[in-house]
Amino acid sequence: MVGVLGGMGPLATVDFLHKLVTSTPADSDQQQVPILVRFCPEVPDRVAALLDGGPSPEPALVAAARALERGGAAFLAMPCNTAHAWYDAVAAAVSIPFLHIVDTALDEVERLGAAGAVGLLATAGTRRSAIYASRGGPATRWLESTDDEQSRWVAPGIRAIKNHRNADGAALLRHAAEVLIARGARAVVMGCTEIPIGLAGQDLGVPLVDPTLALARACVARAGNGATERPAAGAVAAAFP
Amino acid sequence: MVGVLGGMGPLATVDFLHKLVTSTPADSDQQQVPILVRFCPEVPDRVAALLDGGPSPEPALVAAARALERGGAAFLAMPCNTAHAWYDAVAAAVSIPFLHIVDTALDEVERLGAAGAVGLLATAGTRRSAIYASRGGPATRWLESTDDEQSRWVAPGIRAIKNHRNADGAALLRHAAEVLIARGARAVVMGCTEIPIGLAGQDLGVPLVDPTLALARACVARAGNGATERPAAGAVAAAFP
Repeated sequence: MVGVLGGMGPLATVDFLHKLVTSTPADSDQQQVPILVRFCPEVPDRVAALLDGGPSPEPALVAAARALERGGAAFLAMPCNTAHAWYDAVAAAVSIPFLHIVDTALDEVERLGAAGAVGLLATAGTRRSAIYASRGGPATRWLESTDDEQSRWVAPGIRAIKNHRNADGAALLRHAAEVLIARGARAVVMGCTEIPIGLAGQDLGVPLVDPTLALARACVARAGNGATERPAAGAVAAAFP
Repeated sequence: MVGVLGGMGPLATVDFLHKLVTSTPADSDQQQVPILVRFCPEVPDRVAALLDGGPSPEPALVAAARALERGGAAFLAMPCNTAHAWYDAVAAAVSIPFLHIVDTALDEVERLGAAGAVGLLATAGTRRSAIYASRGGPATRWLESTDDEQSRWVAPGIRAIKNHRNADGAALLRHAAEVLIARGARAVVMGCTEIPIGLAGQDLGVPLVDPTLALARACVARAGNGATERPAAGAVAAAFP
């Protein structure tokens, strides 16, 4: 059974569950993966903790992870980039494996034959906490937007999508991605849950990786269901909803 | 904490969770309702059990409900019409309340000032198991499609939506609803998870009630969050996604 540390935010968890269910090669409800999900509003604000000295989410995350373990989860996943700032503490507090969203995204990059220089589109908070930059083997070189690019394209692009102006957001983010590709990125990771809403499915000439979808697929594979039935490399970008 | 008996089917559960999250009047993740969800692929096929003498879902449903109770759920909800055929056995096996999807739909009908004759659009299986027909006070009179209407409009309408021909499905189901309204229905309940995908938001002159949404709203109200902030009566049909 997959244990999901969710609710950060709740719609990102719903999006993850949708991707998990639709990534499972099942002809009937009985072939689906068993899942135990906790939506945890008791976890303090992650951004406030990272940037403004707010209360630490760690105790609540650890308690929820242990409850999922007691409830029968065989491994854990957490569909929230920012909360991975506390990944090590949570992983140390349970005796079951805990999939890291960035590692699953990097696995997807490698599976697509694009390992090496990897572009990252993300919020300033995610970049500052180095959740992405601290992961990956020696072959991985993260390419991030400059501060100027971040404030001109990435931040306004994410903001536009939050405000339901998806086409505007997609145009801004596409521009930011193209600059990273021109600088050598062989894949671009959409490291913020809003970004795929505007950008997924666009043809940029390199793979666009959605970490939420990568985590969902890793859960399906780990649950022993459909590990060999993933789509071929070229089909991945097109398969993004 | 809301306990959700889910996975029947898994996409209907994802739809329910989406409605639960978006029905919660929350300005931050911390104001959301705590939820514990089990996606239970171990529950045998409900339709096969009802129509073809397949294995009973009851033991698996009871075990999952008890696990949710042990996990800290304060009450239960099950976003699947058909599985409510085993509602009584599950409710008897736990000591926490278990919201009935049909009762929450009828509460919504009453709240909309449309109590009395209520039209029902549903699969033949749901109708045969009397999940709807057996609920409601003395004032409730269920109006169902005739066998001829069921085979000409309702069943093909649901089938069309399952096959992603939403406009075709909506036209067929609208016709079936209009016939029930002409026969006196003051509201129409969309008693199958596919139906709102095509029909929700249409103006039929009477309220169209989505039991999944009604159950989600009842969970939010019961969790003590936003019970007084439901939209006004006229806003409900328009609020369907």
